[in-house]
Amino acid sequence: MIEGLPMRFPDGGLPPEVRIYEVGPRDGLQNEKATVPVEVKAEFVHRLRAAGLGTVEATSFVHPKWVPQLADAEQLMPLLGDLPPGLRLPVLVPNSRGLERALAHGCRDVAVFASATESFAKANLNRTLQESLAMFEPVVSRAKAEGQWVRGYVSMCFGDPWEGAVPPAQVVRVCRALLEMGCDELSLGDTIGVATPGHVSALLAGLDGAGVPVDRIAVHFHDTYGQALSNTLTALRHGVTTVDASAGGLGGCPYAKSATGNLATEDLVWMLQGLGITTGVDLTRLAAVSGWMADRLGRPSPSRTVRALTGADDRGGSHQHSHKEQ
Amino acid sequence: MIEGLPMRFPDGGLPPEVRIYEVGPRDGLQNEKATVPVEVKAEFVHRLRAAGLGTVEATSFVHPKWVPQLADAEQLMPLLGDLPPGLRLPVLVPNSRGLERALAHGCRDVAVFASATESFAKANLNRTLQESLAMFEPVVSRAKAEGQWVRGYVSMCFGDPWEGAVPPAQVVRVCRALLEMGCDELSLGDTIGVATPGHVSALLAGLDGAGVPVDRIAVHFHDTYGQALSNTLTALRHGVTTVDASAGGLGGCPYAKSATGNLATEDLVWMLQGLGITTGVDLTRLAAVSGWMADRLGRPSPSRTVRALTGADDRGGSHQHSHKEQ
Repeated sequence: MIEGLPMRFPDGGLPPEVRIYEVGPRDGLQNEKATVPVEVKAEFVHRLRAAGLGTVEATSFVHPKWVPQLADAEQLMPLLGDLPPGLRLPVLVPNSRGLERALAHGCRDVAVFASATESFAKANLNRTLQESLAMFEPVVSRAKAEGQWVRGYVSMCFGDPWEGAVPPAQVVRVCRALLEMGCDELSLGDTIGVATPGHVSALLAGLDGAGVPVDRIAVHFHDTYGQALSNTLTALRHGVTTVDASAGGLGGCPYAKSATGNLATEDLVWMLQGLGITTGVDLTRLAAVSGWMADRLGRPSPSRTVRALTGADDRGGSHQHSHKEQ
Repeated sequence: MIEGLPMRFPDGGLPPEVRIYEVGPRDGLQNEKATVPVEVKAEFVHRLRAAGLGTVEATSFVHPKWVPQLADAEQLMPLLGDLPPGLRLPVLVPNSRGLERALAHGCRDVAVFASATESFAKANLNRTLQESLAMFEPVVSRAKAEGQWVRGYVSMCFGDPWEGAVPPAQVVRVCRALLEMGCDELSLGDTIGVATPGHVSALLAGLDGAGVPVDRIAVHFHDTYGQALSNTLTALRHGVTTVDASAGGLGGCPYAKSATGNLATEDLVWMLQGLGITTGVDLTRLAAVSGWMADRLGRPSPSRTVRALTGADDRGGSHQHSHKEQ
């Protein structure tokens, strides 16, 4: 790794600190083909926390029929141990039944998964957008009454495979509805990875104009078209300080046609570290965790940073060779 | 592909048009293991131009001993045909001998390859930095006397495997020396891919402060750590309008430890198109060219955009499935 002083933008305009919301064990593993034993999942969460990640989404209390990869949520939770104060271990709860299961396991942070578009609400939840929001209302109310911290995912915030580009005003409406229900934080998802920086800027400006405080907003970009980091940089310049990422880029196999392409936590940390932004994450240690997980999954990590760091031993030599006498 | 209106930054600050300097046939193929027949290379250049790329670096008149992949430069040039006005087909010339060979083949655009650091000058050219610049002086003078358009590559502008972080002031000195020699354009290379946006911003501010006109500056980022596009976005906001990229990400095999990780032209065009910036490139056509070249090389393209676009047929279905009932 090149050691050097990080360099901030001369004109400032970036936050001193960013909170990374790690989604690897849930969003990542949910989209991997390989089945991972529950003990390995627990070890994965422990190692991620030991690498400095203070928020790790652990699993989903979804019906096992829909997401067999996470059917072991009940077995996983007791293996995760006591949660120290200040750390979060959210779980996804798709509906009231999921919430009750999460509460029964002593969870204190939950997330619901809403859609910004009619088509995705229909495809994913078999409801209209309005009906889907009505379904979440009692879930969020009950969670808040139980003292939970509640995150609302908003998927398809930029593009939707059926509807094309999604107008910012439509996303703003869904965001306001979720905040009014009581969500503490919203995660703006570019579920199919089509966003570009101008669109990100337009949506964040729209939310600001509607009075949504930027400290309630997280961004969740996918690298399907390689755009996740430049979109993230744009969001940081708008004052966003919570960024979702998946250790090792889990959930986005580089050669799968249907790769969801989660932003790799390591690629994000490399950028933030270079910008002098504090994350609390030990990058070398995190890349080692992702290398370990890639071995469990039997394939290389799609994260460029993980590949560069874990193959770092031979870099000097190979560069010397490959650039000789250009 | 998601069709939708591109969205600019609400605060403007980006150029309306960007010129892409395509390096795939030279920088890309030079770093690929497979040997490509000269007829395929010529067809590659023709297809790139047909996809709308107005500047394509075709090959290098380097000694074949150093870069066997490009040993067929003499055979390639006659296959490329006449060059219409307004288009460029630069070739790399490492020294006076290379320049004479380029002139003998009727080239009208050439590039020299300088270093920003002592260590890389030593490793690559076996000279001190000063000696290497002295070696380029007669090359650039003679090229200008022959009416050539001359580009100067400056490698290791951000980090160097031996020296670590490279101070902007040092890069500025090398850039000024190359401009004083007569170079028409400079390409700032992040040869090992370690740059982050603050560093990019600092170097461009340094060049501006030293009176270097931004329209003489191009940027050449590598995706080794996934940072190329956010660095590019930063450069655009500083007024840079020429960006180097390699079709299909050629030269950066995703699983090779020594991947140089060229920025894929398609990933760049996706971002620029989304920002409403004109490039003249037909993205669908370009991705098809890269898919064709990947077949010739016998491995998938490392470009995320190429993989997403050429595997686009099954995307709707797979997304519907993989996000069901999250």
